[in-house]
Amino acid sequence: MVEFIRFKKEDLIGYSIDFMSWLGVSSEDARIVGNVLVEADLRGVDSHGLIRLTTYYGSRLRKKYMDPATPLKVIKETDTTLLIDGGNGLGQVAGFRAMEKCIEKAEKSNLAIATVKRSNHYGIAAYYAMMALENDMIGISLTNSQPLAAPTYGKKAMLGTNPICLAAPSDRQYPYVLDMATSVVPMGRIKVYEKKGEKIPKGWGIDDDGNITDDPNQVKSGGPGALLPLGGTDVMRGYKGYGLALLVDILCGALSGAGTLTDVGFPDEARESDVGHFFMAIKIDAFRPIIDFKKQIDYMIETLKNSPKAEGQDRIYIAGEKEFEKAEYNLEHGVPLLDKVVEELKENGSKIGVTFDIKPV
Amino acid sequence: MVEFIRFKKEDLIGYSIDFMSWLGVSSEDARIVGNVLVEADLRGVDSHGLIRLTTYYGSRLRKKYMDPATPLKVIKETDTTLLIDGGNGLGQVAGFRAMEKCIEKAEKSNLAIATVKRSNHYGIAAYYAMMALENDMIGISLTNSQPLAAPTYGKKAMLGTNPICLAAPSDRQYPYVLDMATSVVPMGRIKVYEKKGEKIPKGWGIDDDGNITDDPNQVKSGGPGALLPLGGTDVMRGYKGYGLALLVDILCGALSGAGTLTDVGFPDEARESDVGHFFMAIKIDAFRPIIDFKKQIDYMIETLKNSPKAEGQDRIYIAGEKEFEKAEYNLEHGVPLLDKVVEELKENGSKIGVTFDIKPV
Repeated sequence: MVEFIRFKKEDLIGYSIDFMSWLGVSSEDARIVGNVLVEADLRGVDSHGLIRLTTYYGSRLRKKYMDPATPLKVIKETDTTLLIDGGNGLGQVAGFRAMEKCIEKAEKSNLAIATVKRSNHYGIAAYYAMMALENDMIGISLTNSQPLAAPTYGKKAMLGTNPICLAAPSDRQYPYVLDMATSVVPMGRIKVYEKKGEKIPKGWGIDDDGNITDDPNQVKSGGPGALLPLGGTDVMRGYKGYGLALLVDILCGALSGAGTLTDVGFPDEARESDVGHFFMAIKIDAFRPIIDFKKQIDYMIETLKNSPKAEGQDRIYIAGEKEFEKAEYNLEHGVPLLDKVVEELKENGSKIGVTFDIKPV
Repeated sequence: MVEFIRFKKEDLIGYSIDFMSWLGVSSEDARIVGNVLVEADLRGVDSHGLIRLTTYYGSRLRKKYMDPATPLKVIKETDTTLLIDGGNGLGQVAGFRAMEKCIEKAEKSNLAIATVKRSNHYGIAAYYAMMALENDMIGISLTNSQPLAAPTYGKKAMLGTNPICLAAPSDRQYPYVLDMATSVVPMGRIKVYEKKGEKIPKGWGIDDDGNITDDPNQVKSGGPGALLPLGGTDVMRGYKGYGLALLVDILCGALSGAGTLTDVGFPDEARESDVGHFFMAIKIDAFRPIIDFKKQIDYMIETLKNSPKAEGQDRIYIAGEKEFEKAEYNLEHGVPLLDKVVEELKENGSKIGVTFDIKPV
């Protein structure tokens, strides 16, 4: 049984700010990081939340693998485009600032793309794409990441789980927010099966020889084995997921000049991650009155949800819907953190004198 | 055994022009349609080539379901955006003109999006995205289409096979051209199994109750059954393919005001298809010197192709590679048409007095 403790959202953000500030991050930047991480826990995407505050981010900052100042530099800028050097700082800060500028540019020019190079892991892709929603824009957020997935017919991890995220505003319904890794599952999912001592479904990953395996121990970050791209086997068209992962790497890495393929990531190494991000904002009323678009999104969502269900099913979901429901519930009842995450926060916090002593709700 | 006959590319385009002209299409527009259709056969995508000239397009034009004049109308235009009413004409003409304008705008503004509503089937998505390549741009081409795929947990076809296509230029290697349906397979693939009397792999489609089936007769256009989105079952994350299909419908249908979901298509009905398209061009040197980008694409392609192969495999492919190889071969040896396609062209052509009498090579 999964055990968790609930906290107030603002308290968790507050602790993140204290922790990040201690590591040399400005309070303004620390708030951005806190917002992005806690939003993940709030939305139920706990793999990308505070679980990473003291372990991944904290560890890389302490070891000086990342620059806490996040010295962003604009390399190239036009009315519609922006290329930012992330200064090997926090991906959340680079992502937030890049999307902010993107929205600003799209307000004037109707469209804008911002790419970032020399960045780090930026948390949930959806955070940045969703910034477009309140501006009546469609937001897109992509990032490359450390290699975990093998190309079709390959056996070595060459591509990240490279997520694709698009957010589109609605009227009465929840906005449409697709935020998906381009691998069948993320590595964290494999670890859950490993911990439970269960076999993984065939098609999620391959072993060191490139054969489909149901043994989670044969699919590890850094090898042996690798994840398979969305689709899985070639019979099930895994090469499409592979194609999508490469599409993301092209837009994030090749377009910005960041690392691509195996030149991205290195979470435990004393070198730059050189992650690349891609952000885009589309002003909807350059095409249609915004209310017409929003009502069309409502119509699509309602029509899909009301369409006939498969035998044994009673509900059709829309991308983002579960996360919005969880966020609403958690905002009222408190943001849940796993016991072991709370323990880690306490232990790692105490070590450096930033005590995690906030009260559960 | 598949039997085919090879013809000169220019002869096939010439015949397409004659045939389309007879149906009231201007010679300029007829050439566009011919170019797009023959390019599909040239690239080995025969499901989208001349097989559709006299059957699908010819039939819909003869019955006046489509307007042969393709009276395009610009509804809304800015420096970076364009919304076109396709006038219920030929999708190829609308697509070509929209992408042309997109490239023109991106030349000045670095980015542009053109959407089209009230259009029809536009052939291969790659044709339009690839127009960006010679302009040193990244091209994107999306379209919605008649409903053939069911949402996850649903049992009715609510979404088209809604393809995603991105083309990116390279230096020495073939350009990167991903052109993929967001369903596991297109309906044509199911028909191949049906014709051969073979079972389909589990995960490609569902029967009328929404259960996975291996019987191709249970997966038909218009029902019973439906295709499954990329990923297939929920265990294999078919909801990601479903999410991508909906993403395409939002950008093509909701953004342009075209039909969405089950309001698109109707190949055999006396009503407008109301198909929506989405085109985009990104000028690469707004971000990086074009040669740096192209060399990075080469590097990515070469690195992937040289990465370790899975047991029993000796080659890793890149999206678009097979099609470029086929196109090179077919350009030299002639464009192959299936026997039955040649028969259809002869039969349907004779009926209306546009005799298909071109000589094989």
